[in-house]
Amino acid sequence: MKTKQHNFSKLAERLKSSMIRELLKYANMPGAVSFGGGTPDPETFPRHELSKIASEILEEEYKYTLQYSVTEGDPQLINQILILLKRIYGIEGLSHENILITVGSQQALELLGKVFIDSGDYVVVGDPEYLGAISAFRMREPRFVVAKFDEDGPDIDMIEQKIEEIDRAGEIKKLKFIYVVSNFQNPSGVTTSLEKRKALIEVAEKYDLLVVEDDPYGVLRFEGEHVPSIMKLGGTDRVILLNTFSKILCPGLRIGVVVADKSIVRKMVLAKQGTDLCSPSLTMRLAARYLERYDVLEQIKPAIELYRKKKNEMVRALENYFGDIKGTKWTNPNGGLFIWTTLPEGYDTMEMFKFAEQNKVFYIPGEAFRPYSEPSSSMRMSFCLPSVEEIHEGVKRLRTAFDQYRVSRGMK
Amino acid sequence: MKTKQHNFSKLAERLKSSMIRELLKYANMPGAVSFGGGTPDPETFPRHELSKIASEILEEEYKYTLQYSVTEGDPQLINQILILLKRIYGIEGLSHENILITVGSQQALELLGKVFIDSGDYVVVGDPEYLGAISAFRMREPRFVVAKFDEDGPDIDMIEQKIEEIDRAGEIKKLKFIYVVSNFQNPSGVTTSLEKRKALIEVAEKYDLLVVEDDPYGVLRFEGEHVPSIMKLGGTDRVILLNTFSKILCPGLRIGVVVADKSIVRKMVLAKQGTDLCSPSLTMRLAARYLERYDVLEQIKPAIELYRKKKNEMVRALENYFGDIKGTKWTNPNGGLFIWTTLPEGYDTMEMFKFAEQNKVFYIPGEAFRPYSEPSSSMRMSFCLPSVEEIHEGVKRLRTAFDQYRVSRGMK
Repeated sequence: MKTKQHNFSKLAERLKSSMIRELLKYANMPGAVSFGGGTPDPETFPRHELSKIASEILEEEYKYTLQYSVTEGDPQLINQILILLKRIYGIEGLSHENILITVGSQQALELLGKVFIDSGDYVVVGDPEYLGAISAFRMREPRFVVAKFDEDGPDIDMIEQKIEEIDRAGEIKKLKFIYVVSNFQNPSGVTTSLEKRKALIEVAEKYDLLVVEDDPYGVLRFEGEHVPSIMKLGGTDRVILLNTFSKILCPGLRIGVVVADKSIVRKMVLAKQGTDLCSPSLTMRLAARYLERYDVLEQIKPAIELYRKKKNEMVRALENYFGDIKGTKWTNPNGGLFIWTTLPEGYDTMEMFKFAEQNKVFYIPGEAFRPYSEPSSSMRMSFCLPSVEEIHEGVKRLRTAFDQYRVSRGMK
Repeated sequence: MKTKQHNFSKLAERLKSSMIRELLKYANMPGAVSFGGGTPDPETFPRHELSKIASEILEEEYKYTLQYSVTEGDPQLINQILILLKRIYGIEGLSHENILITVGSQQALELLGKVFIDSGDYVVVGDPEYLGAISAFRMREPRFVVAKFDEDGPDIDMIEQKIEEIDRAGEIKKLKFIYVVSNFQNPSGVTTSLEKRKALIEVAEKYDLLVVEDDPYGVLRFEGEHVPSIMKLGGTDRVILLNTFSKILCPGLRIGVVVADKSIVRKMVLAKQGTDLCSPSLTMRLAARYLERYDVLEQIKPAIELYRKKKNEMVRALENYFGDIKGTKWTNPNGGLFIWTTLPEGYDTMEMFKFAEQNKVFYIPGEAFRPYSEPSSSMRMSFCLPSVEEIHEGVKRLRTAFDQYRVSRGMK
């Protein structure tokens, strides 16, 4: 029987299966320790409260919860988002027209791509960078302007230098925005410093650019001081802020938030109309009623405490098992879900992966987070799901894998 | 204070506010009768059952319902979809890899656009056509090949002739698919005849094309015989079937379904990964458990009976108030939510709209459903939401508006 060869679009021909998905295929096998996944612990979700509210709003508000919503999102959830923006960021003075609710942050990234990026346009991203942003933007065929993401945020000098080149080439209008995950970046765990946030806004002002600040992890701070958001510093004229309820509440509701200038929100609403018409009314209203009745920032405190403890354990384990390897380093994040561990120069965590797999320990090689795939000596290690015991056991196995890899390469 | 001029993409510059939204702005004013909206009656939604299930699955299945899902969709809902495909269409032998769950049918249309359409490609659509499909496809910049949509479905001769032209120009590889809403089309209410379904497959075979069959309304048949689906006739090698739970269950869950060849589903899954990662687990599992416990095809029978009655009333009202206007006609659909009324040649339902508005009656001018905006003497009239009394009153007002419009134009 012949198999029909479909005549896909060029975009479809470029779409590849996620490297992470392939790598983590065996991460759930018995006895394995996985530092791979970045999903929150389901035990931290307020299931009893959500169960009760869902039952109520389906009985009493069915005319809303089971019907189409408006594309902009549930107005009652937007009310709650405006309150949270004030509480979390100290951002005030915004109205409903500044907010769009999306199906997770991923949709916000995709809609941003639609409303800003034409084929050949430029977008500034980090190395390493959040993979979901790269894949959303990539569908619109931009050229990525890649700047090193250091231990205090993006390399501003490198960004300025590359922007200058684009400006000299007369293409500055094609540079659409600078993308940055401002707090506890996925994958590096790095928080961009206040100085660098200000510098980013200066660069944006100088070249009349937008900054897209993505902040899914900011509320998961377990130590150190809150750093003012780029949006708070730069305002909606200069900054688009993305957020999500996936880490503060739970991912299953798929609720992302765009905070932006009204004209940008308007365009994104039109793009969303053609993309999925509207988000599910039920999940939006569920989040709205939850936020009305409970203090979500109080509710996540135990989760934050849990992550803090696990992060410290992972740092201790790394000190124990990798402290003697000269040139090895790791970030020590003040929040979020990830530690970024870098092996000495010349090592390749993708090559090492098969040794790790043999030792039943999993991580994500740094290569997965580079806008243009290149070998990397770094790896993302998530501490949110494994137990404390698993963290120590996993890092121990990682050292074994590292030693085996070293021997196989003839390195000492 | 200066307002920042944003440097949007070409796509964003093309995005316009929905004409329907603008037209129906005042449709909810007191005393108005609206035939505009196409949303189902919320009283037909099984809210008690859904309320109970939601409460249960949030308590007991929170590890799934509040967590990220896989991009393909809830496997338990896919099980139920496979059962429904057999019951509704007699389609058997498909597996999980043939199914993708989307955020409403709108997302299915958008993902189809992504995986098939490059700028300048051809897509065959009807005149009139479902607006959501046009706007989803348009984001990928196709050229629409428009064929008249007659009272028994698409004008096959016109389609063949236009395809031949494209073939002669050596561009047949750029023709990606023929799109058709097979049952009770939105806006016309027309069901494509069995002969035309077969003819569509023949054309598709001859030129090695795909047919996209969109069938949101098929289950809402209130009279006449089931017509075999194009998918049933042509199989997954030739046909992609789109469906939705918006009309069979409720729109608020935002659950669409793609049934297609595995390689197509695979590409659409990859496109969905970059688009919104995954659909909300809660709404998918809610639908799955509902379908397991209740017979959805039994449950919608009262709704179908209601729609049948209202459709008959609207036809009666049209006979009463427009029976004497020579050259006026209306479809008499066997299901769905819409009647398509056409005024005598030379009339323009967009021009007439302001008279209707003055008389507090609302409809959607046919122009809204043309792939390339052109005046139309037709209008879409939805009978699902107004009461029987409102239907008669509304059609009466429509006649008044028509008479006023006629006078204003100096026509008799």
